Amino acid sequence: MRFFSDNAARIHPKVLDAIVAADTLDTAYDGDRWSQGLDARLSALFDTAVEVLWVPTGTAANCLALASLCPPYGGVVCHRDAHIQNDEGGAPEFYTHGAKLMLADGEGAKLTPATIAHLLDAIPAHVHSVQPHAISITNATEYGRVYAPEEVAAIGELARNRNLALHMDGARFANAVAGTGAHPADLTWRAGVDALSFGFVKNGGMSAEALVFFTPGHADAARRRRKRAGLLFSKGRYLAAQILAMVEDDLWIANGAAANAHAARLAAAAGDRLVHPVEANEVFLRMTPDEAAALRAQGFDFYDWAAGEIRLVTAWDSDEGDVARLAAAIGAL
Amino acid sequence: MRFFSDNAARIHPKVLDAIVAADTLDTAYDGDRWSQGLDARLSALFDTAVEVLWVPTGTAANCLALASLCPPYGGVVCHRDAHIQNDEGGAPEFYTHGAKLMLADGEGAKLTPATIAHLLDAIPAHVHSVQPHAISITNATEYGRVYAPEEVAAIGELARNRNLALHMDGARFANAVAGTGAHPADLTWRAGVDALSFGFVKNGGMSAEALVFFTPGHADAARRRRKRAGLLFSKGRYLAAQILAMVEDDLWIANGAAANAHAARLAAAAGDRLVHPVEANEVFLRMTPDEAAALRAQGFDFYDWAAGEIRLVTAWDSDEGDVARLAAAIGAL
Amino acid sequence: MRFFSDNAARIHPKVLDAIVAADTLDTAYDGDRWSQGLDARLSALFDTAVEVLWVPTGTAANCLALASLCPPYGGVVCHRDAHIQNDEGGAPEFYTHGAKLMLADGEGAKLTPATIAHLLDAIPAHVHSVQPHAISITNATEYGRVYAPEEVAAIGELARNRNLALHMDGARFANAVAGTGAHPADLTWRAGVDALSFGFVKNGGMSAEALVFFTPGHADAARRRRKRAGLLFSKGRYLAAQILAMVEDDLWIANGAAANAHAARLAAAAGDRLVHPVEANEVFLRMTPDEAAALRAQGFDFYDWAAGEIRLVTAWDSDEGDVARLAAAIGAL
Amino acid sequence: MRFFSDNAARIHPKVLDAIVAADTLDTAYDGDRWSQGLDARLSALFDTAVEVLWVPTGTAANCLALASLCPPYGGVVCHRDAHIQNDEGGAPEFYTHGAKLMLADGEGAKLTPATIAHLLDAIPAHVHSVQPHAISITNATEYGRVYAPEEVAAIGELARNRNLALHMDGARFANAVAGTGAHPADLTWRAGVDALSFGFVKNGGMSAEALVFFTPGHADAARRRRKRAGLLFSKGRYLAAQILAMVEDDLWIANGAAANAHAARLAAAAGDRLVHPVEANEVFLRMTPDEAAALRAQGFDFYDWAAGEIRLVTAWDSDEGDVARLAAAIGAL
Repeated sequence: MRFFSDNAARIHPKVLDAIVAADTLDTAYDGDRWSQGLDARLSALFDTAVEVLWVPTGTAANCLALASLCPPYGGVVCHRDAHIQNDEGGAPEFYTHGAKLMLADGEGAKLTPATIAHLLDAIPAHVHSVQPHAISITNATEYGRVYAPEEVAAIGELARNRNLALHMDGARFANAVAGTGAHPADLTWRAGVDALSFGFVKNGGMSAEALVFFTPGHADAARRRRKRAGLLFSKGRYLAAQILAMVEDDLWIANGAAANAHAARLAAAAGDRLVHPVEANEVFLRMTPDEAAALRAQGFDFYDWAAGEIRLVTAWDSDEGDVARLAAAIGAL
Repeated sequence: MRFFSDNAARIHPKVLDAIVAADTLDTAYDGDRWSQGLDARLSALFDTAVEVLWVPTGTAANCLALASLCPPYGGVVCHRDAHIQNDEGGAPEFYTHGAKLMLADGEGAKLTPATIAHLLDAIPAHVHSVQPHAISITNATEYGRVYAPEEVAAIGELARNRNLALHMDGARFANAVAGTGAHPADLTWRAGVDALSFGFVKNGGMSAEALVFFTPGHADAARRRRKRAGLLFSKGRYLAAQILAMVEDDLWIANGAAANAHAARLAAAAGDRLVHPVEANEVFLRMTPDEAAALRAQGFDFYDWAAGEIRLVTAWDSDEGDVARLAAAIGAL
Repeated sequence: MRFFSDNAARIHPKVLDAIVAADTLDTAYDGDRWSQGLDARLSALFDTAVEVLWVPTGTAANCLALASLCPPYGGVVCHRDAHIQNDEGGAPEFYTHGAKLMLADGEGAKLTPATIAHLLDAIPAHVHSVQPHAISITNATEYGRVYAPEEVAAIGELARNRNLALHMDGARFANAVAGTGAHPADLTWRAGVDALSFGFVKNGGMSAEALVFFTPGHADAARRRRKRAGLLFSKGRYLAAQILAMVEDDLWIANGAAANAHAARLAAAAGDRLVHPVEANEVFLRMTPDEAAALRAQGFDFYDWAAGEIRLVTAWDSDEGDVARLAAAIGAL
Repeated sequence: MRFFSDNAARIHPKVLDAIVAADTLDTAYDGDRWSQGLDARLSALFDTAVEVLWVPTGTAANCLALASLCPPYGGVVCHRDAHIQNDEGGAPEFYTHGAKLMLADGEGAKLTPATIAHLLDAIPAHVHSVQPHAISITNATEYGRVYAPEEVAAIGELARNRNLALHMDGARFANAVAGTGAHPADLTWRAGVDALSFGFVKNGGMSAEALVFFTPGHADAARRRRKRAGLLFSKGRYLAAQILAMVEDDLWIANGAAANAHAARLAAAAGDRLVHPVEANEVFLRMTPDEAAALRAQGFDFYDWAAGEIRLVTAWDSDEGDVARLAAAIGAL
């Protein structure tokens, strides 16, 4: 019973169907009919004209975005627990040619205008100090917390005032949208976001994420960077088809909501073990090594997060019975 | 009727079956049972211990190989018509952090010890000149020519004598193996090849190539570079499963042979229009614009290669009837 | 008697005096009074508002310029015999993060609109091909040829029409100005040049070149790149003082003219041995190995350029007697 | 009266004499007699065979060292107040192609085995986390603290045990040697240091630092990286001559001792204002803005370090009278 992560979950049947349906000869790269339809489809979803690139991984989406928004000699403000800082093997530095991640604080891995400003104000403007060019926030965060539209907007305003671009790592954007009930537009461009890594892989996709540019002027160069990074699949139709299937009838939101609901069930059983409020599909619990071992002995798989803490992650396809059993097991500890 | 390229062909049914079969929860990244089986399976195929990384594109495979074999301040000798020089959008320079491609000549996009030595001998050893660290050859070449084992071995010997590593871009390795009838080992490590980009996408795969290291000591760093390039899929099992399906019962060779046979049929019809001997699945023909237009008017799609030349590429799934019709149409010009 | 190169010549006494005069405490980096005066002084020289960065080497000047004018995924058109291609150890690729040098032809290492257009017209616009973003020409060229203002202007017009930036490697700009008698403005910004590597080291300086931006918008980022490359001397005043001394009373032109005059003397003695017209301070001669050995036996030091060719370079401080002796020796062969 | 930094001090007369003495024609780059003598001279100084490259700035020395010791996908452990992290404009990331600086703690900007191990132990070995490849320490530190030989040796042992290389930023190595009285060998290679940035610019030089490799195998590649970074002066003799002059009769140690003595005088006057023990040539004092303004009104120039703190730096050529006046002024506050 795997609560280790949502990153290896199965493909949603509708997505798999879409892949199979795309198994017909068409133009290579992103010239096919699926890829060519992405801009329009996601423009409708976001209620504004966007430019979209499919990429195969969240790391690729994040790092192409950062390379688009920050020059090699610049810096990107992010939370010190951000995925781009800790879990991408130095990919941001590779894609940006050595831009510096500038680490700010914030509860639940959420940045705030105050914590960002605190960091920014300490950076001298001279050439000896790397200058920030962008901010990157994660929604939902690495601790399963979500930004409300007004929280994003406050950061967006700061970004605009400081002449910084704003990127959102939305590997779990679906969980954030489902968790807040907010319109995707309100969580992004209306709040000042320039580029979104719109994640599907953790949410029922196989191998496709969407890099969405709300601000014009970036997509052409990003397409060249995508090719230059070896990310331009010759059979791009199989990626585009996944994205189109995920957004059809809001499947992505339904899947995010399902994962969130599983997490809520676990949270309800966890009582005061909860380390963070559960707002998406991740549950962090205080737990002794003995307790963790006891759960594992019952067949539950999860991540030891920090000393005395475990992380449980639910997915779109978590088994209801498994979730119920885990909730019961936690309650019985 | 598409003879434009083999790069957008359909997925072989057995590969698609393997993808579907892999749609079950397993460990993320390359910890799953499919990925974990790759080294053993390809070691058996190559009759020696190899280390294998799945990657999604040929460009990624080539460039991770080059980054493994050449430092940023070094150079890579390749043919001036090589894919890495002309068709990868600067990816080799991105992955290697600016290593220089050093362009040598050779008939049919084939390098020879003589053309390589001619280039090498003109490079002063001092720090003002970039020093070569590797040679990259393509088999089958960009003109559909193949290297025989002894031709690779001659280059391998030169490489060893000059202290250079040897990479083979095998985006169409299957066609080369099918075309020569040689054992894969004789075309690679026995001939001095250190790393092979073993292509499947053009040959019935969906999105998986294998980067094969014959020389130990490179794979660990290459795995870090793969992650750093955003190429480490969390659901790597879908890539590994493709590769395993392709090598099962030598499907890859059968597919390569099928494509080659289609090309041979076209070649037979082409008579003295042939620009290059047809040894794999590419056919280059002398053709006037009017003749090309006449073919297109009959529904044939292909690439205008150079002034007065067209390129036809067949695939594993080219339609017999289409091939016959094209052969007839060429004969009738 | 050294005719090997002008790159190791002595410091002009006025430059050395200026260094000694700057040996007084002042603000660090480029905050000192000498550095602060550069923009105004060179704006006067060029008869337009320019922004100037001192750097210690011609390679640094060239590569900071290229990094300013071309993104990592772009290309720079240059002559295949250009210094940036052959003699800078891959520095352009380092500074630009892997931009591609695109090699064009032209007699005497001079590009022409026709040779540039020939190269440009063969580059497809798609993402598989690196796109050119800049042109770099060398004046005087690697073969001691000079561009007249109208020749630069023709290339400048092409650059503007193709939306390319134009860089001039002026390691021997003094020799070009002295050789053509043209106004520095006519050889640069009036002809469409965006950035000039204005060389002094070969012409009486110790360790200072000026990177001159004629087009606004580049200097700020270039200053950050300069720091990031470890090129921002804390005692920048010693570099700025050199440049100011060199431009004082047109010392730089006088020095260039002196070197050119020495070369002219050698050229006059060379008769039909001349490989290239002598327009600056370099003389290429056809010469058998035996003849070269005979000259060397008389104490003359020079470079074997290619089979059957030698290169003689004169400097601002070449000894009149040495030049006369070499001229005589050549005549006597 | 400048106590702002030692980075813009005058050239020591013996160094200037050496520059003038080198103003004679010799081989270019590092082929001249001065450059060729560096290895032997510094091998004698360090009592072991070393390989030496001159470079013009401390940033260049540090970053060439780091690029030699750490691959692009690796990390370098340093103090969070280290110069390479805060004051080099991202140069380490540029030279290493994006390696990550990993920030550890320690009093007075000094790392300890414990603080390093604390950081290292938190880094998972998997590919998602950048792996450390080197440690960089600064001696004397950014707070004017020095490492004793046994402190360096303890870090050196940790480095060896963890398979990490060890770099020392010795921009103020002279002050550390003068302050500890230790033999240069005991502070470096005997304590496990692989590469030293041996600073002279802050200590009486004009524009020359020495990058010293104690561990064989790095210098050849570093020379290519030096060229590739535009740092290979054609008139390298003027840099080598500076270094030779500085080490002649231990001038560097005498200059370091002079600066330290000035600082000791200020420290003695500072009483309990001292933020850090004064062990080299930097003095950090608690001071209110009003007090700082009062000192400035008397003509003293210095750096506002942090809220309520100022930094005073003495140099080899600080004026005795100025120092006495400043000491008196501090005492009188």
